[in-house]
Amino acid sequence: MGKVFVNIGLSLDGYMAPEGMDLEHWSTPTYKSWGAKWGTLMGYILKQKYFRERLGFGEGGETGAINDMLRTTMERSGANIMGKRMFEQGEISWPEEAPFHTPVYVLTHEKREPWVRPGGTTFYFVNDGPESALEQARASAGGRDIRISGGAKAIQQYLKMGVVDELEIALAPVLFGGGQRLFENVDDAVPEFRIDRVIDTPDATHLRYVRA
Amino acid sequence: MGKVFVNIGLSLDGYMAPEGMDLEHWSTPTYKSWGAKWGTLMGYILKQKYFRERLGFGEGGETGAINDMLRTTMERSGANIMGKRMFEQGEISWPEEAPFHTPVYVLTHEKREPWVRPGGTTFYFVNDGPESALEQARASAGGRDIRISGGAKAIQQYLKMGVVDELEIALAPVLFGGGQRLFENVDDAVPEFRIDRVIDTPDATHLRYVRA
Repeated sequence: MGKVFVNIGLSLDGYMAPEGMDLEHWSTPTYKSWGAKWGTLMGYILKQKYFRERLGFGEGGETGAINDMLRTTMERSGANIMGKRMFEQGEISWPEEAPFHTPVYVLTHEKREPWVRPGGTTFYFVNDGPESALEQARASAGGRDIRISGGAKAIQQYLKMGVVDELEIALAPVLFGGGQRLFENVDDAVPEFRIDRVIDTPDATHLRYVRA
Repeated sequence: MGKVFVNIGLSLDGYMAPEGMDLEHWSTPTYKSWGAKWGTLMGYILKQKYFRERLGFGEGGETGAINDMLRTTMERSGANIMGKRMFEQGEISWPEEAPFHTPVYVLTHEKREPWVRPGGTTFYFVNDGPESALEQARASAGGRDIRISGGAKAIQQYLKMGVVDELEIALAPVLFGGGQRLFENVDDAVPEFRIDRVIDTPDATHLRYVRA
């Protein structure tokens, strides 16, 4: 059976997204400097050859350990699960060929038919909770791994359920001062993790934790 | 002029101290498991030869990069600054020879004469704010560095003042779920940091940030 994993960027003060990065201010990244903050957090990805090629950013890019990690993350994923907020932001931002290439289960109260995108991504809207989404993801992943893509609240739900096997965090040296925290509402039900490996780069410290 | 630095242990979810670790429950470490959580966070220190020798824990211990870091942290410090809460917990916990061996400036509203301990530690009780404590610490440090020892609120005050030159964090793979967060009440006034070095150990990831 596939692993359940998380792979995200995190600010040094523990935020996945800065304050002001919401649908209302999506077209005004200067609002509370959310665009600049987000750019600092995600800078490490934009440099990577794998990412640049997949999003059509053009030639070039780094090809080291971080690039390999991005490729592995994509290739191991048989299904994705995400929260409503991440989906809504993506819906207006992703290219037509949404960058998942797997079934994606969206946790939402909205009832909606599956949304099929070119390139193998189909969004399914799950109204009956995170357990159900995980079951559906497992059923469709063909033994490959399940990525809890985000946002913070969705990840928290799976941490609390104790089903997250691997937690990969790119810890960037930026302070957001506010926003969506990764670690809220977690308690002793969360499995204990141990450090599996660390990749040290100038842009971020890539921490990988696995269940102890 | 000496640097202002922080060197602390931090849980993966960003807490310096777990919920329940307070004066009221100091003698009941089973309360909310604060003792076990704290022990996991601080486990990396207890193994080190330098720490064991200085606190009279006996022979043996590790002598690698982390041991060197502990020695350097102690030797570079010409003065310490701490909050009232940290002091009050230490006052009932430190051995008679308090483990600082420098002047220590305690941020407090309490008026109290300096408290002289054997071994070169004298606690001064500062009633007129963190700027004043820093001035006094600089005046007494003889050009050596100033350590903001803790707790979280004291560190936050100096981060907000923009005077912290170096931030050393031992990030342990433990989730506290609650307690005293390091990064609260920080905002854009905080200087930007860059990653200076990372030491990867099984117990903790030792992150060192310096002003960008």
